[in-house]
Amino acid sequence: MSCRWETVAVLGVGLLGGSVGLGLLEQGLAHRVIGLARRRSTLNQARRQGAITSGTLLPEKAVQEAQLIVVCTPVEQIAPLVVQALRLAPPEAIITDVGSVKSPVVQAVWEQLPREAHRFVPAHPLAGSQHSGPRYAKADLFRDRVTVLTPVRGTSPPAVREVQEFWRALGSRTLRLSPQEHDRRVAWTSHLPHVVAAALATTVPVKWQDLAGTGFRDTTRVAAGDAQLWTQILLQNAAQVHQALATFQNQVQQWLQALEHQDRKRLTQLLQKAKRHRDAVGS
Amino acid sequence: MSCRWETVAVLGVGLLGGSVGLGLLEQGLAHRVIGLARRRSTLNQARRQGAITSGTLLPEKAVQEAQLIVVCTPVEQIAPLVVQALRLAPPEAIITDVGSVKSPVVQAVWEQLPREAHRFVPAHPLAGSQHSGPRYAKADLFRDRVTVLTPVRGTSPPAVREVQEFWRALGSRTLRLSPQEHDRRVAWTSHLPHVVAAALATTVPVKWQDLAGTGFRDTTRVAAGDAQLWTQILLQNAAQVHQALATFQNQVQQWLQALEHQDRKRLTQLLQKAKRHRDAVGS
Repeated sequence: MSCRWETVAVLGVGLLGGSVGLGLLEQGLAHRVIGLARRRSTLNQARRQGAITSGTLLPEKAVQEAQLIVVCTPVEQIAPLVVQALRLAPPEAIITDVGSVKSPVVQAVWEQLPREAHRFVPAHPLAGSQHSGPRYAKADLFRDRVTVLTPVRGTSPPAVREVQEFWRALGSRTLRLSPQEHDRRVAWTSHLPHVVAAALATTVPVKWQDLAGTGFRDTTRVAAGDAQLWTQILLQNAAQVHQALATFQNQVQQWLQALEHQDRKRLTQLLQKAKRHRDAVGS
Repeated sequence: MSCRWETVAVLGVGLLGGSVGLGLLEQGLAHRVIGLARRRSTLNQARRQGAITSGTLLPEKAVQEAQLIVVCTPVEQIAPLVVQALRLAPPEAIITDVGSVKSPVVQAVWEQLPREAHRFVPAHPLAGSQHSGPRYAKADLFRDRVTVLTPVRGTSPPAVREVQEFWRALGSRTLRLSPQEHDRRVAWTSHLPHVVAAALATTVPVKWQDLAGTGFRDTTRVAAGDAQLWTQILLQNAAQVHQALATFQNQVQQWLQALEHQDRKRLTQLLQKAKRHRDAVGS
């Protein structure tokens, strides 16, 4: 069997990077997966799990023979690493990433390296968990998930096709949006739920949590996510998330009024509308 | 093997009542489980599933030979059915229920039937799902869940022991609280998460839900619950839920400020506090 990619570099081998490596190697899609991390121990763990074939602490060594580079770090480190990788990698290498926010990353790469930025095909696989780190990596993390690609006018069309094929090979459905439109939508569908879950988790007194059923557990699950990762995500999309949260607050205001007046008809209407919305998504 | 209970009446054979019947019969804890429903088709389905041994549309037939009666209807029907059952059942029969709100039910039963109310041991198993109806019933629905018992001063101690044994036999851990304290706590741990999930589900535009990941799905799952059931629950506990929701809104306000000022330190603090709260509950 011939591999689709000879050498793939995965920069950052946490939950997402580890899952990229596992998916590539378990399916025989890549011959070599070179991992980059800041700690030797992370690389050792990723190698033991079969997520990378070798690891390095040096970006230049990670990318020097790569055809494809996947940047899987926390979002604030993505643009600097993409720029560095574009400078260090072979001129035909293509780069993609997994960042939850796209506009600031795309803008920074084009500003800093306008001649090479066409090889960067920004991506956001809508996959993850409240856990982080390579030990939670799974070969099928991206299967049946949506990966949004956000190429811009200058992005190389063959690079877009290659990156699309890459995410599809990992089992993902792909979708194209502009970086701005992506960021606007995920503010509502991903970042708002995180903030709401966090606000709810904090509101419920810990001493009463023996009365917390599956409803509370489901509704607050994502609030266990890494605080530093999410600080970066929310800061990079702060204006959009603020707008979504303000709209949510208006909804809450309607509930407060209905509860205050014990308005049966209004409560049923609010519950029915919520159910219609939720039923439209599926389990 | 001798059964613990000869005849148990289950009044209302939806998700909870069906699960009570399945749990009793699969473990051989009851010889007969008589189901009461308003529709013959519901009884037929419950019998096909093995959740009841026979069914009836008439309360007097359901309870006439029961040692134990479990009322599993939507919360507004519980007090009237408990009163009716206490009048119709043998004088030694004991009654429990599954209502999500306790004070109004307990108060109504004691007001209407002060001489018999000592045989009613109110209970709330913290178990359920966004689905309703007997076809979602599971024999282990109550296993490893908490069931709160809310006896009052006049409740018969032997009846409390028997009902405690009943819920433990279904796999539940039991806990005793006053009806008022129960209602206060579940306003925060159960009813507030429901309202928040519903408000969130409504806020996110349906047309963007292809970008909804597991975070949105988890956070809004309970919003798919039955609107009529939840109208009743929220109305019966409206003042407490209002107070919890107002406190939640203050939390949201803090998030809005942190996002507006792109306050990195504050966002991290808010996220860390939420994570500590959520981590204390477990998965």
